[in-house]
Amino acid sequence: MVAGELGPCSATLDRPVPTVASFSGRPHPLLVHRNKSGCRVSAASQQTRRVRAATVQAQVASAEAPAIPKPGTLPPKIVNVDLGDRSYPIYIGEALLNDAEIVSRHVQGSQILVVTNTTVAPLYLESFVKGLREQGAFKVESVILPDGEEHKSLQVLQQVWDKALESRLDRKATFVALGGGVIGDMTGFAAAAYQRGASFIQVPTTVMAMVDSSVGGKTGVNHPLGKNMIGAFYQPRCVLADMETLKSLPDRELASGISEIVKYGLIFDPELFNWLEENVEKLLNRDSKAMMHAIDRSCAIKADIVALDEREGGVRATLNLGHTFGHAIEAAQGYGVWLHGEAVAAGMVMAADMSFRLGWIEPEICKRTVELLKRAKQPITPPKGMTAEQFRSFMSVDKKVQDGKLRLVLLRGPLGNCTVTGDFDPQILEDTISAFVAHEGISGSSDLPNTQ
Amino acid sequence: MVAGELGPCSATLDRPVPTVASFSGRPHPLLVHRNKSGCRVSAASQQTRRVRAATVQAQVASAEAPAIPKPGTLPPKIVNVDLGDRSYPIYIGEALLNDAEIVSRHVQGSQILVVTNTTVAPLYLESFVKGLREQGAFKVESVILPDGEEHKSLQVLQQVWDKALESRLDRKATFVALGGGVIGDMTGFAAAAYQRGASFIQVPTTVMAMVDSSVGGKTGVNHPLGKNMIGAFYQPRCVLADMETLKSLPDRELASGISEIVKYGLIFDPELFNWLEENVEKLLNRDSKAMMHAIDRSCAIKADIVALDEREGGVRATLNLGHTFGHAIEAAQGYGVWLHGEAVAAGMVMAADMSFRLGWIEPEICKRTVELLKRAKQPITPPKGMTAEQFRSFMSVDKKVQDGKLRLVLLRGPLGNCTVTGDFDPQILEDTISAFVAHEGISGSSDLPNTQ
Repeated sequence: MVAGELGPCSATLDRPVPTVASFSGRPHPLLVHRNKSGCRVSAASQQTRRVRAATVQAQVASAEAPAIPKPGTLPPKIVNVDLGDRSYPIYIGEALLNDAEIVSRHVQGSQILVVTNTTVAPLYLESFVKGLREQGAFKVESVILPDGEEHKSLQVLQQVWDKALESRLDRKATFVALGGGVIGDMTGFAAAAYQRGASFIQVPTTVMAMVDSSVGGKTGVNHPLGKNMIGAFYQPRCVLADMETLKSLPDRELASGISEIVKYGLIFDPELFNWLEENVEKLLNRDSKAMMHAIDRSCAIKADIVALDEREGGVRATLNLGHTFGHAIEAAQGYGVWLHGEAVAAGMVMAADMSFRLGWIEPEICKRTVELLKRAKQPITPPKGMTAEQFRSFMSVDKKVQDGKLRLVLLRGPLGNCTVTGDFDPQILEDTISAFVAHEGISGSSDLPNTQ
Repeated sequence: MVAGELGPCSATLDRPVPTVASFSGRPHPLLVHRNKSGCRVSAASQQTRRVRAATVQAQVASAEAPAIPKPGTLPPKIVNVDLGDRSYPIYIGEALLNDAEIVSRHVQGSQILVVTNTTVAPLYLESFVKGLREQGAFKVESVILPDGEEHKSLQVLQQVWDKALESRLDRKATFVALGGGVIGDMTGFAAAAYQRGASFIQVPTTVMAMVDSSVGGKTGVNHPLGKNMIGAFYQPRCVLADMETLKSLPDRELASGISEIVKYGLIFDPELFNWLEENVEKLLNRDSKAMMHAIDRSCAIKADIVALDEREGGVRATLNLGHTFGHAIEAAQGYGVWLHGEAVAAGMVMAADMSFRLGWIEPEICKRTVELLKRAKQPITPPKGMTAEQFRSFMSVDKKVQDGKLRLVLLRGPLGNCTVTGDFDPQILEDTISAFVAHEGISGSSDLPNTQ
């Protein structure tokens, strides 16, 4: 069995279920549960997870002494990412951005560089910097990058290092990422490589960044030949997810973040998937309580997986469901034409289609995936004009390629189960690609995204 | 006492000697020894060190099953860098370069990218690549960078990533640095950031790279505002130091590497310093046996220090004796005008001068340092025309600056003792800078290097 494969549950299973030792030495809660209950995620296990998450929160809450909620706001949630001496808390709440006390608690030295972009800066930069300056004897500098995935390059990153060096920041400085996933990834890598390692803090301002890119320490920039090809595994000191910042987020960006929440449901948590089917419109309408629930669950799932496999030797790769197809879509069009979540949405539909063609999932899962993503206003096919050759070419430089063999995250078994494998009939991959470039799609629909 | 300070031994000592726990939790052999014997490095302790080194070598030798020496060559020495699961061996010998079996033993995947430069490529690349290809089913690619410190930039580094991606190398690929310190530093950082971490191997072809830059995992590139400002701590899988490659090294480069060997004597090993005073001409004449001894001792000292303090939280900073002054010299002139070792030589003389002005060392140490470096054909003053303001400006962005305070490595006590401290009268630093920019120098000599 390929390392990193979650226990497949379909009738075609002809290989042994992996022991928990396949991963990083600690038992994977999902696997432990499956071994006990025959591949079904029962209500009891959901209960266990909730209890465990609540316990972690309580422990962190007492250790970290989080801010008391502002009058009229919901009490903040805290998810702990458990990585030994690199552990850190994710604060999820309302009106956290101007509570500079939380950020300053995690600043190591006396120098702060806030990295943000031209869209976010006019909204939050001034008050954020003011709050930090009032906190204590911090020297606070800032740098404003152009906005958009197409600027996630080494050339633009250089501006951060230029600013840091012009400001004479030393290696104990803290870089704060104030923005979406692009700003978070770039700032993290800038900090990782600055004098061989400064500190950093994530203040995500998009749903996508809150549920995915700010958690787990993947940082980096794109290369013309591939997404996130240059980067580092580098953990922040804390993450601050403030629901207030989502109020100014454009509809399209908000919706694209929901893709990643759907992903957590598909790969790990059928209860979250069911909840999304009931509540996706609340998320689109920016209901704070619903949003905090979705972000909390997503972060908790990601934190569990990252704690098991920080450097993506195994189970962490499952978080890339839809991403290999999605990256090909982004690369073929040029970064920034589609949003990341949009490309992942179409990619997840392709992965589901391929899983179905392999006989690994029931058609019902494909259908529910397509329906949910459509309600979340996400594309369910690749862009018109994209060719099979483009898929083949861009997928072959994916980071999950090992010694020349393409590995994919595919669904396998009941909802909430997946596998990372290179062990599939390559013709089936060709069939999926052919169907989607011909815009037949999974459901025979040729719906195109609202983003073209 | 500032963390990272080695126990000062001078009469001005008014602070407690640090306990060994000041460092990384393991006893520092030097400190342990000093606490026992009152700041003097005795013959007995030298004996202990030799025995310890020999034991380590024997252990590694049996574990690593090193190559049997080729007929007519000296038996290879092996120094182990002890960093837990990131430990690796340094092989020091003759005719190792074409013994592809050793390198291939440390290659993880099936893909190799050899990174070299326009000077080294015509000498060794073809036979090296041929040897690797003959070893097994390796796909071997290579990229040839322009030679020189002035090309140690992000822009040039990009060529490595371009080549890796064009060659479809995956994250299990191994990058091999075939060249001097610049190639080693750049290749290491290229590997560290490639898909968030590929493997790498060092094959240093200069004395400087063998005794310093290839050991300990410091990688990176220069920024116009400072040397090595962008990089990572990233350990190689092994280091291969082949004396054969030094035969083609230009005299000036060979001599500049001797600077760093002198440094190990000054900060740690009076016996090595004494040996150099007797044998420096043998090194200049490329005597293999003498060179292997000097490289072996230097690597063993550096390996010990790196094992104690991989990320330079404390004692590792002592390896930067002369480097803060030296970096200022390199930056002021533009990288590549002086060789790194030349700048460090002048920097060590300045550090010794300042240590003497502070009353921390006897004048004899200054004198012996100047004499030895002159015999090694190294500059002992900064270049003509360099200003005090340039020193102040470039030294203030040094990585050893913490929260705005400049810390320096200075000599303190008998030969072989040093300290890392920001606790000095800044006027003394000014006095040293003034004396040297006026070319009074330490000895009143205004000798200029043979490199202008």
